[in-house]
Amino acid sequence: MRLLFTNCDILVRGEDGYETLRDAYLGVDGDTICFVGTTNPTEEYDAYKNMHGALLMPGLINCHNHSAMTLLRGLGSGRTLQSWLFDSIFPVEERLTQEIVSAGVNLALLEMIAGGTTSFSDMYFFPDVTVEAVAQAGMKANINRCVQCFDPTERGEDNVKVRESMELFDRFHGFANDRVRIDFAVHAEYTCTEPVVKYYADLCRGKGTRMHIHLSETRSEHEKCIEKYGKTPTQWFSDLGIFDTPTLAAHCVAVTEEDIAILRAAGVTAVHNPTSNMKLGSGFAPVRRLLDAGMNVALGTDGAASNNNLNLFEEMHLASIIHCGYHNDPTVLQPCEILDMATVNGARAQGRENTGSLAVGNRADIIAIDTGKPHLTPNLDTCALLTYAVQSSDVCMTMVDGRILYENGEFKTLDAERIMSEAHAAVRKLYEK
Amino acid sequence: MRLLFTNCDILVRGEDGYETLRDAYLGVDGDTICFVGTTNPTEEYDAYKNMHGALLMPGLINCHNHSAMTLLRGLGSGRTLQSWLFDSIFPVEERLTQEIVSAGVNLALLEMIAGGTTSFSDMYFFPDVTVEAVAQAGMKANINRCVQCFDPTERGEDNVKVRESMELFDRFHGFANDRVRIDFAVHAEYTCTEPVVKYYADLCRGKGTRMHIHLSETRSEHEKCIEKYGKTPTQWFSDLGIFDTPTLAAHCVAVTEEDIAILRAAGVTAVHNPTSNMKLGSGFAPVRRLLDAGMNVALGTDGAASNNNLNLFEEMHLASIIHCGYHNDPTVLQPCEILDMATVNGARAQGRENTGSLAVGNRADIIAIDTGKPHLTPNLDTCALLTYAVQSSDVCMTMVDGRILYENGEFKTLDAERIMSEAHAAVRKLYEK
Repeated sequence: MRLLFTNCDILVRGEDGYETLRDAYLGVDGDTICFVGTTNPTEEYDAYKNMHGALLMPGLINCHNHSAMTLLRGLGSGRTLQSWLFDSIFPVEERLTQEIVSAGVNLALLEMIAGGTTSFSDMYFFPDVTVEAVAQAGMKANINRCVQCFDPTERGEDNVKVRESMELFDRFHGFANDRVRIDFAVHAEYTCTEPVVKYYADLCRGKGTRMHIHLSETRSEHEKCIEKYGKTPTQWFSDLGIFDTPTLAAHCVAVTEEDIAILRAAGVTAVHNPTSNMKLGSGFAPVRRLLDAGMNVALGTDGAASNNNLNLFEEMHLASIIHCGYHNDPTVLQPCEILDMATVNGARAQGRENTGSLAVGNRADIIAIDTGKPHLTPNLDTCALLTYAVQSSDVCMTMVDGRILYENGEFKTLDAERIMSEAHAAVRKLYEK
Repeated sequence: MRLLFTNCDILVRGEDGYETLRDAYLGVDGDTICFVGTTNPTEEYDAYKNMHGALLMPGLINCHNHSAMTLLRGLGSGRTLQSWLFDSIFPVEERLTQEIVSAGVNLALLEMIAGGTTSFSDMYFFPDVTVEAVAQAGMKANINRCVQCFDPTERGEDNVKVRESMELFDRFHGFANDRVRIDFAVHAEYTCTEPVVKYYADLCRGKGTRMHIHLSETRSEHEKCIEKYGKTPTQWFSDLGIFDTPTLAAHCVAVTEEDIAILRAAGVTAVHNPTSNMKLGSGFAPVRRLLDAGMNVALGTDGAASNNNLNLFEEMHLASIIHCGYHNDPTVLQPCEILDMATVNGARAQGRENTGSLAVGNRADIIAIDTGKPHLTPNLDTCALLTYAVQSSDVCMTMVDGRILYENGEFKTLDAERIMSEAHAAVRKLYEK
């Protein structure tokens, strides 16, 4: 199937940043982009799609999510971090079942697809349920079974989650035309032990996939690690060999200059989660310093319980302005850097080098923005429009691997009505004791 | 005309915060709310409106705007504040005409009405054009002709803007069923002189309306004032008698404890503009301290050139989380305080004591939120949903003084197609030299 988008603007990424092609054409052949240009291609297409002036841009990539936490949206708002976790979140999570997680993930897929997210990195319970939902929806995700251990005497070879993580990898890595990739994962320094992490790192090394961890999310986590081990979480993970596998480190709020040097040398991606870091009181990740050090920085929403949605345009907006406020300097981060974080940097972080920008040969992971709305008029600067003004509700089409998943409010692969009804049923099960 | 909303949830404000009435009824008689309750009223209504479970809440009030700056949206992004103002904004503003401002204001009205704003406080050129547009649209606004003076020898009685400000007040204050109110205004300490401000303050005192100023937006403005006058901008305005008129002070980022005491004693409202303060690098207004001191704090978007939209749900979201990040404490501001800032505090700031909450006897300034969407499911906590998850695009109805201005994407009082076309024409005139 060959499809040609006509009458569209196209956001393309060159050597020196972004450029918008006006009145342009974009061709898709199967799952791949085969044409991008401002002249009507001479080749025949099977179908033509008039976009009525909409802007095509790469799909957004959410590099840190706990997708089924949609069902915990709004729980324990306004509490301290400890009370939020121990009094609100953990007691509810104990009641999670496979069925409930499935309902939560599908609810998250509706929101993400409608908001222009084409791929996400997920860390939560019952990951095989997430694999199935993502495969059916036509989306992309890097999914893991994350390793935890609270028993200091447990050996790595006896840890159930290590085994489950490896089994998940063997079963599903590269599944569904490589839309599903299985990552490895350690939840965090403070939720694991040295023997288990070391054993796991040895198993993962050289497997050709990625690692996903929480890293120095708060000052307190960072300092307690130094007290306990005499080293920072970054040094701890590094010494145990975790960074020998390409790693996606969520948060990096409290990292030091020495940490940044270690992370940079190991090729670790920092995933910035601005809403979650603000809402939970964690603080400001040193995004400018991470970028200046040459690190890859991507964006994430974190789970809906600490956000409270999965809206990457909101994260782009926050990432673009909060650091300017914090540093009293409106030039700290440029719109083009924010766009990179939400697209091509995320693709790199997921090990998906064939997506993240609209270029011939890349996978057709494309979203369309209806720029004709009052709040997007005039469009004097497309990158500024996308970072400061566009809302997730301005997404009028989401395509993954050349297949349209969503268009003008309609889901093409998901039964939204059934998913909403299952979500409500799951909520009743979770909260009615 | 008597209208009854049925099958709706209603956000009501009691002594101890907010409560959501489920499956409730709200009656409107002419421009006024005549019934709020969970039992079907026995009185007859002329019309019944089934809201299919939507949430009714008070319309949002934007207390600091320069509405025609929609046409400057995206101009000079990523520049320093000085370069943004002098190289980008001011040269374009010199080309403004009455016709262009009219196009910009109408564009702003479309965005605000669709996003659930029912009233705004505006400060810009050609205010009579804004009066006319607001009156026609059916919206509410506090509008002013703001006083500036750069000639230290000019006497107050010779200042053209002082005269225009008074004329505007005499012509239009209380216009259109009191939907249009005329405020007084001094642009800022650094754009005016003592003789003019003193003369103007004397004229305004006792007129029974409000004052609108920019106050200590940046540290640099604040410190230059101390250098020049030996006092802070707050002390300067106070000494010249400006606060003898109830005042709405935009920004208050750099105010001191002494300033806060003066402002509190004078009953000044601080208008918090979180997006603008972040984007322009101004910093974090001490919102918690302002509230603890007992000040009235309202919300604003500032102009679209420094935002880049007029989305009060975005401001609510930012106000609710950035201070938690800045103070490393997720309990700094509670969702109910943010809702107050966007509604009842704004009403008080505008001198509109008869709106800002859904209570019998108040004006029917009501918006409806479609809470049935995936990103708003589940609704475990309505205040949290409204501050952290709801988007402006979730507004499905906007009513002002009992008249529906917008419903399900359709404008009832404005010709959106004509306004968009006039906006595009105005943009061409502004930018094509």
